[in-house]
Amino acid sequence: MAATKPMRDQVTDYIISLQTSIVEALEKLDPSAAPFKRDSWVRSEGGLGQSCVFAVDPESKDATAHQTILEKAGVNISVVHGQLPPKAIAQMRADHSEIPYDPESGKSLPFFAAGLSLVIHPRNPHAPTVHANYRYFEISEAAEESDATPPQLYSADKAQGKVIAWWFGGGSDLTPSYLYPEDAAHFHDTLKSACDPHHEALYPAFKKWCDEYFYIPHRKETRGIGGIFFDDLSPADHKRLSEEANKTKPKTPEDIFAFVQSCGNSFIQSYVPILEKRHATPWTDTQRRWQLIRRGRYVEFNLVYDRGTKFGLQTPGARIESILMSLPEIARWEYMSDMGTQEDTEEAKLLAVLREPKEWATTAAH
Amino acid sequence: MAATKPMRDQVTDYIISLQTSIVEALEKLDPSAAPFKRDSWVRSEGGLGQSCVFAVDPESKDATAHQTILEKAGVNISVVHGQLPPKAIAQMRADHSEIPYDPESGKSLPFFAAGLSLVIHPRNPHAPTVHANYRYFEISEAAEESDATPPQLYSADKAQGKVIAWWFGGGSDLTPSYLYPEDAAHFHDTLKSACDPHHEALYPAFKKWCDEYFYIPHRKETRGIGGIFFDDLSPADHKRLSEEANKTKPKTPEDIFAFVQSCGNSFIQSYVPILEKRHATPWTDTQRRWQLIRRGRYVEFNLVYDRGTKFGLQTPGARIESILMSLPEIARWEYMSDMGTQEDTEEAKLLAVLREPKEWATTAAH
Repeated sequence: MAATKPMRDQVTDYIISLQTSIVEALEKLDPSAAPFKRDSWVRSEGGLGQSCVFAVDPESKDATAHQTILEKAGVNISVVHGQLPPKAIAQMRADHSEIPYDPESGKSLPFFAAGLSLVIHPRNPHAPTVHANYRYFEISEAAEESDATPPQLYSADKAQGKVIAWWFGGGSDLTPSYLYPEDAAHFHDTLKSACDPHHEALYPAFKKWCDEYFYIPHRKETRGIGGIFFDDLSPADHKRLSEEANKTKPKTPEDIFAFVQSCGNSFIQSYVPILEKRHATPWTDTQRRWQLIRRGRYVEFNLVYDRGTKFGLQTPGARIESILMSLPEIARWEYMSDMGTQEDTEEAKLLAVLREPKEWATTAAH
Repeated sequence: MAATKPMRDQVTDYIISLQTSIVEALEKLDPSAAPFKRDSWVRSEGGLGQSCVFAVDPESKDATAHQTILEKAGVNISVVHGQLPPKAIAQMRADHSEIPYDPESGKSLPFFAAGLSLVIHPRNPHAPTVHANYRYFEISEAAEESDATPPQLYSADKAQGKVIAWWFGGGSDLTPSYLYPEDAAHFHDTLKSACDPHHEALYPAFKKWCDEYFYIPHRKETRGIGGIFFDDLSPADHKRLSEEANKTKPKTPEDIFAFVQSCGNSFIQSYVPILEKRHATPWTDTQRRWQLIRRGRYVEFNLVYDRGTKFGLQTPGARIESILMSLPEIARWEYMSDMGTQEDTEEAKLLAVLREPKEWATTAAH
């Protein structure tokens, strides 16, 4: 028996268990709603996944069937592998110069990618949408002699090419239609508490990155009130961290994975209490209308700017249903909407913090 | 007095008059509905436009107020000009090698663009969405001495740099949720009748281009049942036409403009009779659901692939509300929807022709 499982298998185990915990926490919250639909799939090019999806049967005539806490939600994992073509390797080397590769060789390299991705759109306009994604990416040496070996999901006891580059990415962010500053603070505080034990430079750097990443240039506003976003976490120095922080940041696979697990494990605590507090708040048709307009912005961000979505849509053989799971059940667009234009309204208060991101964390660094 | 108005002014006059005709035809169809909202705007960088937009006041509690034939519609014109930066000129020269320009000069060139753009989303799932766009683009010599002249909209009696390149583009396409082959044939026949007198090679070439342009790769389907799409119509040979057709196609500004006007003028006849026929067809909640799913696909095409939308969203100072006017009032996304998956349903019949575009015109070339 191997002393330590390869990281790819540790990550795979972790995201499977995280998916289960999150789905169960959401199901427990709304026991009268139908359970999430578990939908396993296999990628013919190599890999598999499981989508856990919530939606109400649109044909149900039973009015109470539509009174669920969630409106549409997906908690998906995927574990895929294959060959990375030279062009993709060249693109990745822009951020990962450590990948030993001769662009002249024209060779493909084996890759492995495992991740969890979730989006939860609650029904109540006072309850925010949330998104989280944690992922691991690995590139191996071309294993000359084993080219003909069929792809394997679990590799612990299989021969495989030496891993030549790997990194983690992830994050979680909140998208309210109505701003409750205490919810924003709770969300950020929880993430900060998950980050701080691993290095106090992580939360501030990744909070800022999140605000920058989830920005909708044509609307001049962020998608929501942020959270954390990170990519390219590897032993190498990180471009988003100071020289000082890079000296002491997590560097080993174990330390980086521990940080990512800490973030992932904080998800339920960061979000479920907010959902518990807001899901039964009475709402008006006008508030629902505003929520649907905000969901339109969510669609705009995801389809026009989100790198993961764009990359997915361009990937031949990608599972489109899993990629577009993030889209809300219903979105709305109004020409020159008056909503949010009048000062001192609840809608304008949200827009103010989307136009100028705030610091939400109330706790000092440890 | 000038014997002939410059083309920019002829086109401006034309699109203003076409906008008026189309809006009036739509208003006449539904006299009990509120009129289109006329919304004029000025672009500080040079230019102006008028959006004519239809939407029902979402806050109206009067149920009959929501029983309009149209659900959301916009018929917009814009006439803008300014300076084209070297990078944009370089891009344009890929399709217009005739533009005399030294990339080493680093100079900007004056441009002028005028166009009409419309999208009509009716309420009834049996009535199709339609889109049309006709546009004229012009590049002039840098007018060294008049650089400081403020931009002018109408230029007939003003000194201006010599026009060094110009072209027309446009087209119109239909997006049904339910397929009525006779409507598709009527729409294509009308467009074909508008094209054929100007050259019989135009309709077949631009029908094919339309099917290719309005393709959603990640869904492996077209947005709708097509129509015509063209760009880069100028005196030069056109890449979409055969060597033979290029010898006799419209080449002069007058002939090309006459062709574009013929297409634009056919719009009302191509669409309004279909709307008249379908707007009162009874529909079910399930048919409405399917219509909203199809509108989700419309959003996907426009935000992910449409070049005009993408270009607009990237243009600093662009009028976002006019660009996103094309989006439907409501769109819907379901994970792994069952709609359209069962053979012999009306939904599946639509998908079949979106997956494999058909020839719809029933009339022979003249």
